Amino acid sequence: MNNEKLPIRQENYSEWYNQVIQRAELADYAPVRGCMVVRPYGWAIWENIQKALDERFKATGHVNAAFPLFIPMSFLEKEKEHVEGFAPELAVVTIGGGQQLEEPLVVRPTSETVIGHMYAKWIKSYRDLPVLINQWANVVRWEMRTRLFLRTLEFYWQEGHTAHETMAEAQEETLRMLDVYADFAINEAAVPVVKGRKSESEKFAGAATTYSIEAMMGDTRALQSGTSHNLGQNFAKAFDIQYLDRNNELQHCWTTSWGLSTRFVGAIIMTHGDDQGLILPPRLAPIQIVIVPIYKNDAEKALVLPAAEAAQKALSAFRVKLDAREELTPGFKFNDWELRGVPLRVEIGPKDVANASAMLARRDVPGREGKQLVALDALAATAGNLLVEIQAALLARAADFRQAHTSMPADYAELQQVVENGWAVAHWCGNPACEAKVKEDTKATIRNIPFELNQAADPGKCIVCGAPAAEKVIFSRAY
Amino acid sequence: MNNEKLPIRQENYSEWYNQVIQRAELADYAPVRGCMVVRPYGWAIWENIQKALDERFKATGHVNAAFPLFIPMSFLEKEKEHVEGFAPELAVVTIGGGQQLEEPLVVRPTSETVIGHMYAKWIKSYRDLPVLINQWANVVRWEMRTRLFLRTLEFYWQEGHTAHETMAEAQEETLRMLDVYADFAINEAAVPVVKGRKSESEKFAGAATTYSIEAMMGDTRALQSGTSHNLGQNFAKAFDIQYLDRNNELQHCWTTSWGLSTRFVGAIIMTHGDDQGLILPPRLAPIQIVIVPIYKNDAEKALVLPAAEAAQKALSAFRVKLDAREELTPGFKFNDWELRGVPLRVEIGPKDVANASAMLARRDVPGREGKQLVALDALAATAGNLLVEIQAALLARAADFRQAHTSMPADYAELQQVVENGWAVAHWCGNPACEAKVKEDTKATIRNIPFELNQAADPGKCIVCGAPAAEKVIFSRAY
Repeated sequence: MNNEKLPIRQENYSEWYNQVIQRAELADYAPVRGCMVVRPYGWAIWENIQKALDERFKATGHVNAAFPLFIPMSFLEKEKEHVEGFAPELAVVTIGGGQQLEEPLVVRPTSETVIGHMYAKWIKSYRDLPVLINQWANVVRWEMRTRLFLRTLEFYWQEGHTAHETMAEAQEETLRMLDVYADFAINEAAVPVVKGRKSESEKFAGAATTYSIEAMMGDTRALQSGTSHNLGQNFAKAFDIQYLDRNNELQHCWTTSWGLSTRFVGAIIMTHGDDQGLILPPRLAPIQIVIVPIYKNDAEKALVLPAAEAAQKALSAFRVKLDAREELTPGFKFNDWELRGVPLRVEIGPKDVANASAMLARRDVPGREGKQLVALDALAATAGNLLVEIQAALLARAADFRQAHTSMPADYAELQQVVENGWAVAHWCGNPACEAKVKEDTKATIRNIPFELNQAADPGKCIVCGAPAAEKVIFSRAY
Repeated sequence: MNNEKLPIRQENYSEWYNQVIQRAELADYAPVRGCMVVRPYGWAIWENIQKALDERFKATGHVNAAFPLFIPMSFLEKEKEHVEGFAPELAVVTIGGGQQLEEPLVVRPTSETVIGHMYAKWIKSYRDLPVLINQWANVVRWEMRTRLFLRTLEFYWQEGHTAHETMAEAQEETLRMLDVYADFAINEAAVPVVKGRKSESEKFAGAATTYSIEAMMGDTRALQSGTSHNLGQNFAKAFDIQYLDRNNELQHCWTTSWGLSTRFVGAIIMTHGDDQGLILPPRLAPIQIVIVPIYKNDAEKALVLPAAEAAQKALSAFRVKLDAREELTPGFKFNDWELRGVPLRVEIGPKDVANASAMLARRDVPGREGKQLVALDALAATAGNLLVEIQAALLARAADFRQAHTSMPADYAELQQVVENGWAVAHWCGNPACEAKVKEDTKATIRNIPFELNQAADPGKCIVCGAPAAEKVIFSRAY
């Protein structure tokens, strides 16, 4: 079954995406509408993502904790924009232990409120600051249109929540974590991302300012892949998070929050995948190298299998798998592991054993071009180099793709065309009406206001209304 | 505040327990009744537990995945004993996205049902077996009387769920995982545990047989610290988990499940703690060694602090912390880290700097007896040895304590006395009425039917009714 052809990406991207996930056994639909089961292979990718991020969080001084799943409904109502943003998406527990609850409990859609409540209890003085806590958790948002990994009722994420003495420190933290996300995306997932500020209409409900990293998927649509929020004193005021400052005066804290979710697995699938299936970046791949022994009869098997096992041992510094399944042909196995996106394949047949060699095949370069013969005693070193090369090649390819599909339209008519198959970089006056018009006309939204496009002042005219515009933004349709 | 004395354990064990948790900042009460916040120091212990267990799970062939939080109410009803056991404890979501749901959703109290549903979908043939999946998850049980770590509405655990071809394989798996738990408890947590079978009345709702590890807490009560269930074909039949066997005939699978939770943090606190606070086993301690610099003035500080930093560097193979806080006295710091259970303390004062030495103090041996002077160049080696010694000493002490508080009463009158301050080992005829009588008379229950007490046939008379009894059991009051 796994050897049936996938839908061709260019013909039906959405169906390609769904089938890759199902057939590579990354995830499956749960019995409850819109919920997903993350299967072992998909979860192993997420565990590698967790490890890469968690190291970075700890290196920047953060610690992990666990806050409760249930939040009293009244908590959400304390921050006006927050409850307006999340009220339509809530799952609500009304019965506990057979009894109707006096106050309904919300299943957390995010944890600013309950964490704010605890911080108010814990923080007394400037000596307690900063508080730098992250949690790995499941959250629930009652979405109407769902999609495996991209938008599910329950999803998995980390949410960092920090409290600071000053506005400047909170802002520094907000940007620090955005940098951590970008560093992770680029250097671990080989997903090039654009860092920038969200427009007012796209910011997190309750934030002062939201920043995001945005990536271009294989169909040119954008995927918001991580967000970092400067919450100002909004939640500190709503939850009385106060501290005695260095002058012994009571002040409200400045808080931040930042999150990255299992949605990022979707980003990896859609950034790197091809018509054969997944292509996983070596640094996050659960299996970096698969070894396929090739033999036609028992005599050849007796020769080949020990060589394959020796190769497995030689490659033990990597995440390596020997596919010794009996009932399947090598060709079936090639397709199967290509579908699953294993970056590097080692083929060993009788001739290879005789020559003390093996064939290496790169997942990212199909056909003969991606193959090379290597002496067995150079296997580990060559494989290691190739994995580094593949990682870099994936990043470069994705960056080239993004560049090739990013334009600077000269006028509004061109913008409308561009966003049908790419990103448009254009000046925007800051008026939400112009933003809304683009969305209505094209379904494209302002993904963010990129830092790197706005480093130097370069005023122009709003692509929509022609009014003076200080900043350039990215318009794109998005997931 | 952390330097106030704790309640004395022997006078008020329960208050001692609560205060240790709060003051060592392991956990706090959440705003929702019965829910807890696991604070960073407590979560760091849990992360170390997770790491130790996860390695063992992977070494025994298991993989991780994630199944959904929400389970349709109808699923629970498919296994009769299961729903009877869990129905009174359920939290139920009745509203989603502002709408009343057609079918209420249960917040998982455990995941046999929804995982059974998925396994039925995934498993086709004997070639797909065994399926060996674990998940790290939060679960919710609507408990009436709650206690931090020991019994909370929401708690954190791992739940393993496996499916097998034969009854024998399922039984082998059930006992393998019980061994994994015992190995973890003994060798990582220094908590001696008794492996055994649960009586019918104490088994998991829906299991064929339940096994447990039981530990004795510092007040002699028992704590069930992990369970492993042979589910027979009960869930396979309820959820149609079927496979084509080697003769191409359709068979029901044999399944198991096994879990260990944040309750184990409570086991560590109550097994090792003393009147000064926590004592953490070195292998799981978030901080294994704390360095406290001792100085009276700036001149001494200029001498001592660099030496303390050098010691920190020398000890970098361990989880080490240098407590350089300015505003606190060394005495305060000693108490503070004792409360938090750090296994080993390094004290460095001006005299130590002059002599190129440091004072090492063991948390598990109070006063002068636990102190030794060590040359700075032998610091790392000595500290490493001491941590191993402390780990072993904690285990030995707990095992001695358990032995000293375990008796074999001669008759029922003696049993009633014994269980007031210890465990009673006695023959039991297997009749639930005798078990119930003990519970009613003494509050003690059959903790389990220990393997090691029943290796050889040693028939006797039931301690309650005098009827012939094949097996010995442990009676004890329990958490």
